[in-house]
This record gives sequence, C-alpha cells and structure tokens, in this order.
Amino acid sequence: MTNKKEITAGIIIIGNEVLSGRTKDINTSTLAKWLNSLGIEVKEARVIQDKESVIIETVNSLRKKFNYIFTTGGIGPTHDDITAESISKAFGIKYDFHKKAYSILEKYYKPGEFNEGRQKMAKMPISASLILNPTSGAPGFYLENVFCLPGVPSILQSMIGGLNNVLIGGEPILNITINLRTVESEIAKSISEIQNKYTEVEIGSYPFFRAGKLGVSLVLRSTNKDKLEKCNSEILEFIKFKNINLAKED
Amino acid sequence: MTNKKEITAGIIIIGNEVLSGRTKDINTSTLAKWLNSLGIEVKEARVIQDKESVIIETVNSLRKKFNYIFTTGGIGPTHDDITAESISKAFGIKYDFHKKAYSILEKYYKPGEFNEGRQKMAKMPISASLILNPTSGAPGFYLENVFCLPGVPSILQSMIGGLNNVLIGGEPILNITINLRTVESEIAKSISEIQNKYTEVEIGSYPFFRAGKLGVSLVLRSTNKDKLEKCNSEILEFIKFKNINLAKED
Repeated sequence: MTNKKEITAGIIIIGNEVLSGRTKDINTSTLAKWLNSLGIEVKEARVIQDKESVIIETVNSLRKKFNYIFTTGGIGPTHDDITAESISKAFGIKYDFHKKAYSILEKYYKPGEFNEGRQKMAKMPISASLILNPTSGAPGFYLENVFCLPGVPSILQSMIGGLNNVLIGGEPILNITINLRTVESEIAKSISEIQNKYTEVEIGSYPFFRAGKLGVSLVLRSTNKDKLEKCNSEILEFIKFKNINLAKED
Repeated sequence: MTNKKEITAGIIIIGNEVLSGRTKDINTSTLAKWLNSLGIEVKEARVIQDKESVIIETVNSLRKKFNYIFTTGGIGPTHDDITAESISKAFGIKYDFHKKAYSILEKYYKPGEFNEGRQKMAKMPISASLILNPTSGAPGFYLENVFCLPGVPSILQSMIGGLNNVLIGGEPILNITINLRTVESEIAKSISEIQNKYTEVEIGSYPFFRAGKLGVSLVLRSTNKDKLEKCNSEILEFIKFKNINLAKED
C-alpha cells in the first residue's frame, strides 16, 4: 500500500505463556484494529520471552524502526513481571516508585491492603507518563514512543481508549471485504491482474472453511477511498461475469 | 530455564491479515505445543508483512539464531502468496516448478482442473524437501532448518505430524499448572522466593477472570522432573499454609 503520510507501529507481546502455546495472543488483534481506526499501520508484531536482555534489545531495536511501539504483559506484581524495570534500563532512566502511580494505587486499595506486591506495580521509569486503568487500578505507562500495557486482554481493552488523544494518527485505512463461494485458484489470475492495476489498494486473499463450506475472503485496504471503491467495483463485475456467488461472512 | 541440551525454534507468521487485526493467530499456539512435546523450545514468534524484502530479511536473520524456523502462510495460489519465492531468494536457490510437488498436485486434481493458480503451488525452491499435506494436496516444504507451512490452521495441523521424524528434539519440557483462587499480589513475595530457590524451574504467574471469579494460574516448566516436582510440592505446602483454595482450570 502506498501511503505517503504513513504512520507505523510495532507490537511487542512479552510473555512465555504465549511462546509455550498455553495462551493464544488476542492483544495483537485488539491493538491492530484500534490503531487502524486511528490511521496507524501495524508493521510487525513480536512475541518475546520474559527475559530482561531480550526485552531491552527488542524495544531498543523496534522503537527506532516504527513511529509507535506497544508492549503488552509483564507489568503485574509477580517475580516474572519485569517489563517496567527492563524498559527503564532500555531508556537509561531510573526505575523506582512513580509518585503519581503510587498515589493512585494507595487510594485504590483499602487501608492495609496496599502490600509489597501491589506497591511493585507503582515502580516504573520515574519520568514515565501514565496510562490510566479504569478496570483494576494499576496504570500502564509510556516513555517517548513506547507504550506499555498489561497482558490481560480485558484490562488492556479498557485502557487503550485513554490514548486516543495522545497518539498522532495518519490517514484512516479504509477496507472492504468481499466474501465469495469459490476457491482461490479459480480467481487467482484475474485478482492478480486487478492488483497490478490498483497499486494503491492492497488486496489480500484468504481462504476459509466455515460450516463445511469453502470460500475466499478478499480484503481490500487503502487510504484512497476513490481507488478502493473503483477496485471493489471491478472485482464485483468480474465476479458477476464469472457467475461466482457472494458468501455471508459467518 | 537452564537446559543444557536446549533445542530452540522461532516462528514467522507471514500475513497482513494478522497485522490488520482481521485474523487472530492461532498457529503459534499449535506449533508451540507440538514443538514442546518434541523437546523444542519456541524462543520468539514474529508476525510480518507479506512483503518480499521483509520475509527475506526476517528468515535470514532468524535461521542463524535458532535451531529451527517455521513459517506459516503465503504458500497458496494467489498474488499475495509470495513465501516460496521469497524463501528461494533468501537461500539463493532457483524458484521454479518442483518436480515431485508438481506430480503430487497433477494427480490430486481432476483432469482439466490443474489450472495456472494450482500449478503455482508447485513452484518453490527446486531443491526443497516436501512436507506432505493430507488435507488439501498442496505440500509445504523445507530447506535446511527452515520449514514452510500454510496459514490455514486446520491444514497446518494436519501437516505437522509428518515432521516428527525429521526434527531432532531435546529433553522434553515438562509442566505442571496450579490454579488458585487468589490474586497475584497475595502470593507474589512467596512465589518469588520459591523461584529464586528453584533456578531450573520456570514459574509463570498468570491472572485470570473466569465466570466472574478472579484467580491465578501458576505454570511450572522444566526439563528436570525431580526439581519440577519438588518445586510443585513446596508451592502446594505454602498454599495450604496460607489457606488459599485451588481453582478448577475452567
């Protein structure tokens, strides 16, 4: 997709539980849809180990490569939550109690319940800005272009809206999906020709198997509304000409 | 986890549909569980764009870093399926019709149905070894330590078993999960002390919210059965002492 004002993002999923196969990552999908709606294109997502050297290396490499970086996971109270300390080291900023975060958490818990584990969640790079958490109190944080969010999907989902006014997006990425009752090999040649004609539209072709039936989803994405619609019309004409039926999404 | 005979793997998910948020990746989880059962530890997973230069760079960087690399996606018949050609370029091996793959596909389709799109699926690095596909005919392939599989989860799942005798695994990675009715901050300190004592066991702590109830899953992983069981016993003793209830997994 040629997008002259392209704003890019990278996602870093920090979590051995995803690498062991125990947990299926859904945060990438949540973040990508939300970022797309702000005109920010996710270029890469990495799942990495809960290991300080790996976190530091990955964050420092990707934060130069993309406009924004989002990390998920590793900001809770336990021994394997090492994201905040690793990010502090990646930026060379002191890791200690963050005054505002401490104050938020102290108010959040009942007197006597703000124990050592919970206090740890107030430790982060001391000059970080906070990302408020309406679900469970403990804030995320950001430093320059690196945004650190929790790994629990429902908590992450409740927090990202608070960043809508912090991020600077690009042109919105528009999309159209065409679901077809066909197989990819029947349409491959013609869709390839249409793709070559519409260089500003990205056409993705995805086979599906639902309720025992085969089909193909064509996903058209572009920041250029006019080209997107023309490309869509051309595909629909071709589909009609070839007597291929449309399929329902589900 | 200290594992002297550690065998490692990296996963490369090739697909704009995952980066746009349209599709949630489940292949990482499938591959990771299967690899773990063979004693192979997944160290990193990357989701990258359907873009030749990105595929080449990622494959060439990761294949030096880990014992095995698995790619998923981009080996179908359409214009956006560029994995086979990109892998050929990454290895500097000619991309053309693979004799055995062509013969398999020619037999798979009815006479007259082996069209241009389907023939494309027989194109790959000409010296590659094949990964047979019992579901839909078109084979995957591997070159040295790089294994290329399709993106459709059900097809991928049907193909990986064929590699069990090709891969050389390490010591099996054993695991025990303890589900607790508590919150992480209540156990953080003690679990941290137990982790420090058992350096050969990796203890992961994962909060969950199921059926409106809070809980924590502790996941113990190790190649050392004896240490794993001792660590498990110690945690169970601590849990009993603290009057924390066990929770059901679902």
